Amino acid sequence: MKIQIINGPNLNLLGKREPEKYGSLSFEDCLTGLKTKYPGIGFDYFQSNVEGELINKIHDVGFTYDGIILNPGGYTHTSVSLADAVASVKTPVIEVHITNIAAREEFRHISIVGKYCAGSILGFGLDGYRLAVEAITEIKKQSEKAG
Amino acid sequence: MKIQIINGPNLNLLGKREPEKYGSLSFEDCLTGLKTKYPGIGFDYFQSNVEGELINKIHDVGFTYDGIILNPGGYTHTSVSLADAVASVKTPVIEVHITNIAAREEFRHISIVGKYCAGSILGFGLDGYRLAVEAITEIKKQSEKAG
Amino acid sequence: MKIQIINGPNLNLLGKREPEKYGSLSFEDCLTGLKTKYPGIGFDYFQSNVEGELINKIHDVGFTYDGIILNPGGYTHTSVSLADAVASVKTPVIEVHITNIAAREEFRHISIVGKYCAGSILGFGLDGYRLAVEAITEIKKQSEKAG
Amino acid sequence: MKIQIINGPNLNLLGKREPEKYGSLSFEDCLTGLKTKYPGIGFDYFQSNVEGELINKIHDVGFTYDGIILNPGGYTHTSVSLADAVASVKTPVIEVHITNIAAREEFRHISIVGKYCAGSILGFGLDGYRLAVEAITEIKKQSEKAG
Amino acid sequence: MKIQIINGPNLNLLGKREPEKYGSLSFEDCLTGLKTKYPGIGFDYFQSNVEGELINKIHDVGFTYDGIILNPGGYTHTSVSLADAVASVKTPVIEVHITNIAAREEFRHISIVGKYCAGSILGFGLDGYRLAVEAITEIKKQSEKAG
Amino acid sequence: MKIQIINGPNLNLLGKREPEKYGSLSFEDCLTGLKTKYPGIGFDYFQSNVEGELINKIHDVGFTYDGIILNPGGYTHTSVSLADAVASVKTPVIEVHITNIAAREEFRHISIVGKYCAGSILGFGLDGYRLAVEAITEIKKQSEKAG
Amino acid sequence: MKIQIINGPNLNLLGKREPEKYGSLSFEDCLTGLKTKYPGIGFDYFQSNVEGELINKIHDVGFTYDGIILNPGGYTHTSVSLADAVASVKTPVIEVHITNIAAREEFRHISIVGKYCAGSILGFGLDGYRLAVEAITEIKKQSEKAG
Amino acid sequence: MKIQIINGPNLNLLGKREPEKYGSLSFEDCLTGLKTKYPGIGFDYFQSNVEGELINKIHDVGFTYDGIILNPGGYTHTSVSLADAVASVKTPVIEVHITNIAAREEFRHISIVGKYCAGSILGFGLDGYRLAVEAITEIKKQSEKAG
Amino acid sequence: MKIQIINGPNLNLLGKREPEKYGSLSFEDCLTGLKTKYPGIGFDYFQSNVEGELINKIHDVGFTYDGIILNPGGYTHTSVSLADAVASVKTPVIEVHITNIAAREEFRHISIVGKYCAGSILGFGLDGYRLAVEAITEIKKQSEKAG
Amino acid sequence: MKIQIINGPNLNLLGKREPEKYGSLSFEDCLTGLKTKYPGIGFDYFQSNVEGELINKIHDVGFTYDGIILNPGGYTHTSVSLADAVASVKTPVIEVHITNIAAREEFRHISIVGKYCAGSILGFGLDGYRLAVEAITEIKKQSEKAG
Amino acid sequence: MKIQIINGPNLNLLGKREPEKYGSLSFEDCLTGLKTKYPGIGFDYFQSNVEGELINKIHDVGFTYDGIILNPGGYTHTSVSLADAVASVKTPVIEVHITNIAAREEFRHISIVGKYCAGSILGFGLDGYRLAVEAITEIKKQSEKAG
Amino acid sequence: MKIQIINGPNLNLLGKREPEKYGSLSFEDCLTGLKTKYPGIGFDYFQSNVEGELINKIHDVGFTYDGIILNPGGYTHTSVSLADAVASVKTPVIEVHITNIAAREEFRHISIVGKYCAGSILGFGLDGYRLAVEAITEIKKQSEKAG
Repeated sequence: MKIQIINGPNLNLLGKREPEKYGSLSFEDCLTGLKTKYPGIGFDYFQSNVEGELINKIHDVGFTYDGIILNPGGYTHTSVSLADAVASVKTPVIEVHITNIAAREEFRHISIVGKYCAGSILGFGLDGYRLAVEAITEIKKQSEKAG
Repeated sequence: MKIQIINGPNLNLLGKREPEKYGSLSFEDCLTGLKTKYPGIGFDYFQSNVEGELINKIHDVGFTYDGIILNPGGYTHTSVSLADAVASVKTPVIEVHITNIAAREEFRHISIVGKYCAGSILGFGLDGYRLAVEAITEIKKQSEKAG
Repeated sequence: MKIQIINGPNLNLLGKREPEKYGSLSFEDCLTGLKTKYPGIGFDYFQSNVEGELINKIHDVGFTYDGIILNPGGYTHTSVSLADAVASVKTPVIEVHITNIAAREEFRHISIVGKYCAGSILGFGLDGYRLAVEAITEIKKQSEKAG
Repeated sequence: MKIQIINGPNLNLLGKREPEKYGSLSFEDCLTGLKTKYPGIGFDYFQSNVEGELINKIHDVGFTYDGIILNPGGYTHTSVSLADAVASVKTPVIEVHITNIAAREEFRHISIVGKYCAGSILGFGLDGYRLAVEAITEIKKQSEKAG
Repeated sequence: MKIQIINGPNLNLLGKREPEKYGSLSFEDCLTGLKTKYPGIGFDYFQSNVEGELINKIHDVGFTYDGIILNPGGYTHTSVSLADAVASVKTPVIEVHITNIAAREEFRHISIVGKYCAGSILGFGLDGYRLAVEAITEIKKQSEKAG
Repeated sequence: MKIQIINGPNLNLLGKREPEKYGSLSFEDCLTGLKTKYPGIGFDYFQSNVEGELINKIHDVGFTYDGIILNPGGYTHTSVSLADAVASVKTPVIEVHITNIAAREEFRHISIVGKYCAGSILGFGLDGYRLAVEAITEIKKQSEKAG
Repeated sequence: MKIQIINGPNLNLLGKREPEKYGSLSFEDCLTGLKTKYPGIGFDYFQSNVEGELINKIHDVGFTYDGIILNPGGYTHTSVSLADAVASVKTPVIEVHITNIAAREEFRHISIVGKYCAGSILGFGLDGYRLAVEAITEIKKQSEKAG
Repeated sequence: MKIQIINGPNLNLLGKREPEKYGSLSFEDCLTGLKTKYPGIGFDYFQSNVEGELINKIHDVGFTYDGIILNPGGYTHTSVSLADAVASVKTPVIEVHITNIAAREEFRHISIVGKYCAGSILGFGLDGYRLAVEAITEIKKQSEKAG
Repeated sequence: MKIQIINGPNLNLLGKREPEKYGSLSFEDCLTGLKTKYPGIGFDYFQSNVEGELINKIHDVGFTYDGIILNPGGYTHTSVSLADAVASVKTPVIEVHITNIAAREEFRHISIVGKYCAGSILGFGLDGYRLAVEAITEIKKQSEKAG
Repeated sequence: MKIQIINGPNLNLLGKREPEKYGSLSFEDCLTGLKTKYPGIGFDYFQSNVEGELINKIHDVGFTYDGIILNPGGYTHTSVSLADAVASVKTPVIEVHITNIAAREEFRHISIVGKYCAGSILGFGLDGYRLAVEAITEIKKQSEKAG
Repeated sequence: MKIQIINGPNLNLLGKREPEKYGSLSFEDCLTGLKTKYPGIGFDYFQSNVEGELINKIHDVGFTYDGIILNPGGYTHTSVSLADAVASVKTPVIEVHITNIAAREEFRHISIVGKYCAGSILGFGLDGYRLAVEAITEIKKQSEKAG
Repeated sequence: MKIQIINGPNLNLLGKREPEKYGSLSFEDCLTGLKTKYPGIGFDYFQSNVEGELINKIHDVGFTYDGIILNPGGYTHTSVSLADAVASVKTPVIEVHITNIAAREEFRHISIVGKYCAGSILGFGLDGYRLAVEAITEIKKQSEKAG
């Protein structure tokens, strides 16, 4: 089973940026944890601050991988193009946000990208990525059962 | 560890109501699965169509339980009172929705209740309840580590 | 043929409350008239000021009765949960309002509940309930013709 | 007793236009039915796609007829002038829509014309015209009782 | 003279819930103080988290008591039905809020219920209930003078 | 000097329609008064309830007359096409309203047509037409002075 | 007959300020013209840039003069207090604007003050003041006829 | 192949009205050009300022012609009825605007009519009609290929 | 104890202006009553129609008096500057409105100034000033207890 | 004559992505067709998912080419920067959309980019690119005639 | 070179009012610094809480001074009249705000006055006044170069 | 002292693009001037049309440089991600716009990015960059004084 994790803008600063809001772990620490916990899953990781490169990556893996975990960062609320990319592919995409965006500024309450995702996981810190892996595993199991 | 699951209006029809949207399992089937999977957790279950009774239940368990899993149904988008109840208690509340509300009618895009929840899990069908249990378990672990 | 009439909040005051707007007859007078006029129809009547109890009643009768006549009162404009209940059941629901809500305050112009009803009858005073019975009778005739 | 039925734009296509939404009967079929059912009532019928001609007709009959049944079609949501015409006359005007406009596109949810009508009947197909006749009959009876 | 005090959702937690915002006294402490200060007034107290039960109570006392002091809590901003109940009765209703709602989140700035109240008292903590008693006493005096 | 007076929808009912709002004189009475008062001016009068006929008339006279006095009635607030007609012609157009539209319903506060008029006269009853004649006379004098 | 002319903010610059928009005459030139044309009318003139002084002047003359001609300048669109002053007095107030505000920036389209005026005259340059005098003369004549 | 060209309000002034915006050719010049260029196509031309007559024409040809080229003029942004007419017929309708409406006033940015058209061509002056003919030719070719 | 009462625009007309809305007592009558009732309190009274003079007065007394009772009149809904003045001073400011602004025009529903006040008292006529004195007395008592 | 075709985000998936909406041809097929049909025109083709690279390409060719055909994809509705790039160059830019965006979700109804384009062609599938070539050819012919 | 500095409402409290937001220096300290730093410039200083007096001052100096530095305080967001005053004069006006208004409450994000200013300097505390002097010096240099 | 200047989309065209709005100097001319004027400051310059590359550059220098001067171009009004990048770093960021955005189209009035900047300088042409250098120098001096 192959899962692509895609982190959007400013998430490369994780652990450095506003740690009281986003925690003090870098995403690399989190990734190591996931690989240890789920040895049977192949994880690929990609981070970019460029909207179009996120789209490119979704296109690249979106017809062959079992799941995409996408944290679109600030593009969540503004990018019709990223949302269209999610809608264009076959692989189920899980939206993850580290913070509970409903509890922040009003312009963060609406997720344009989330509309086309299989589901969303909001507010659980880095643990949200683990929950997304759990969700993909179950989606795969269900679709194999159905197939 | 004790977890209260609270389901709001119309969720008593689960399995009967619009199965193409909500699936054909009743919530009781789901609950049995959770109890089997997590034998160390005491699950209490409550469903009501009455907004005020949902508030009452949150008050009852919200200072002693380890977690509340709340699917506020249609009150999600309209109930300031239910949101205030969530804000009033100590126990972390996890919002769960069976469908991805961001993909439905516009009046379902904003969650008033979610604003005060620890986190939200949207769109994974009944599997969302399992993910919420996972999330609470981790929150508890972290807070014990911190405490 | 069985028809459930459901009146929402404040309609228990009918005849007492602002008679220049709602008339001076109580609903009981109206119900007696309907029973006399349509002896072949079994009418059940339910009134509650509690949103959730209205939902309960819709669930109770919504898979077996021939029609529901629903005056949602003030919940008309605010209750997603009540609207969801209407959408959840099989029995056709007819929305009735005693006054012409389009001629009143702006917040009464939109009916959230009406969206999922089979049809709406607005502004004819208590005679609206009779028109709703007429409408249900015709819907039943058509569906039997179609069935 | 004299009743004027006025159908607005595109209703001349009834039976031809989008039959899955509006049914396959022409309005003429419906009119024949009404005349048969209510032999004591004189029905006049007028259809026009021109907003001003609808206004002219309302002016013509609006001080002498017992009732006007008006389906303003697409002018429902845009015509202040038609609404003013309804407000200008003495005869009670009943708004009828074949479909439940609250269940369609958002720009069809508000009826400018309905604001000045005696009442509205929405969503019952062509049977709405019969219900409107019933409503006018009752209004007449009440006003004679009161007069 | 008889006054009914009605507290809405979450006010049962007073003293427990967010004491930095709502103070550390329970409402019972406040009630005892009022009874001591105004021995000539009969105070009845009712609290419920259920919107419809608040409406019921307003109906019960709203034609015979001298005044109602109503803190509608979170229903203030969402309940057309509660507002209609206030409009339906004869007894003057005084809206009280412990906090200054104009200084809180934007969705708390508009009071639907307050529209039909005789007056509103906002932001004085529990002392607002005493001010409301003062206000009712004066209203009574004036209406007796006028009567 | 030639002036065209154009009255829009429902103004044919002047004197008949809601006399407490629009007065009890018909427009013909007013016209007679103007002809008497300004014998040197040729007045043409046109009334129609049809938006497009109002446009036709503006086209007809809009390149040769000295002034157009236009009361667009209910089309004031909705007709981009009528506004475009005003913008298309050379003759100055004066908007007149019998009532003060700023004091009526909110949807009457904005005049789409007025935007392209030389000026507007609102709220003076039928005397507004006389004021408009005065205004056109002055505009003509000024443009002859400038020319 | 006594008429008070009140000019609001920046109108002291008339003739100096943006002459292509407001013309090159000062208001004093206009006033001289009015006094010559209407020798039987006593004109008082007041200009201030201070909102409250405009209110004071309206109070001073608003119970004894025959008419007030008010150009509220920029306060037109923002001043509830000035509007309240107009509503508070007995003397009819005529709103005059030199330019056609409906043809300018959107924030100038709504006149808060105009709502309480007897009528409005917009876009005729300084000639608007003469038209306002004409209007007041007629209003006086009518009210004497009615009185 | 038969194509109906329908021009809406004020387009009869083409060549006369604001030539800097709409050019100095009349539509008749354009039509002659089209007939010369496409001798195998039968062109019918209709212009009216009356909304309802545009609807009538669409009904007349909309079940038999190969294409309709519609420039709805000012009705583009306001006419639900015209939009409904387009939706009611079988013939593909191509919306043409001479100017780029997205570059003009905000109220011209939304096309209600365009919503139901096969496609839209905006901003190419009279050449837009030629492009529409090209588009219809291709649509016909494709549908014959598909048929 | 010293209390400054500040009345804003048009309140000098109290007793003269729209007595059916504001009563027939002047504010001076009310002030005399307060001085009699609370002989131990020094009352200063200030009224102005000028926004900036209200600000000046708040600055003057806002660091030394025990309380300010402010009725901002029409500035309530428009004055950021007055609101800033309230926020700038130390003395608690109590907002009083004679009428229940929530029951009036929509533009009176939001109080910009109230946001920074200690509390608000709305709708009790002139008795609201007495209630405000009561509130200040209690605030003072509490702060002495706390201090 | 040289024409640059620029396709924005997700258009690389053409033929793969939602073929029921976008057709099953890739853009390369379309390009081959254009080259065959217009042998005298040099076509350059560029596709990118990166907003800034689209801007770069517009800058590169926007002072020397005869026309740019731009399908901005999802950036149509969100990119002020892309719109500014179009406004910055000399070459006329033609906006093309494969689908009729007015018939899709509301957030696709407004084209920020289209505002600065010479014209727009919407809803004709891949044939829209051919129509754009036709339009550019005509624009060139006109500007040579004018030059 | 002569520069007028104008400070609006509440800025007289500088150093006293909310020092954590506005700093602890009075404006007089700042002015002394500017005079020392720019001995060749004549500085005049004016502060008022009265909107109209700010307008008066702008009129007084706005045709002769080299620059105006204006901090409109709370009138920034509400005063069309002050904005009109800025637009009426010849002297360039520089808007200065001590705090970054874009980072404060939403109603402070829009500057009506700034629209007509030469430029704006926001968020640099009292140093903003120095930057404004720098800006005016450069504007003067450029206009002399151009002149 | 090290300052990074970052120019966003389309600013590479400075001097070429719409010179009547943006002036005829390229940014390189401006940069040379700054280096000459401030020899003690190390200036780095970066321009990109790619949103993500602007974010990358802010990350690169945002923890070590003394100041960032950022002109976000069209991303100012749309980029939550760029705003988040500004919020993420330690170095103070100064927003500069060449034109006064408050005087342009409405969609340019709100700066999302400016919200997180230390301050903003708008409308002074290229001189704004010099003012920003002045501002950073002062911020550095103050923070050294404070440190």
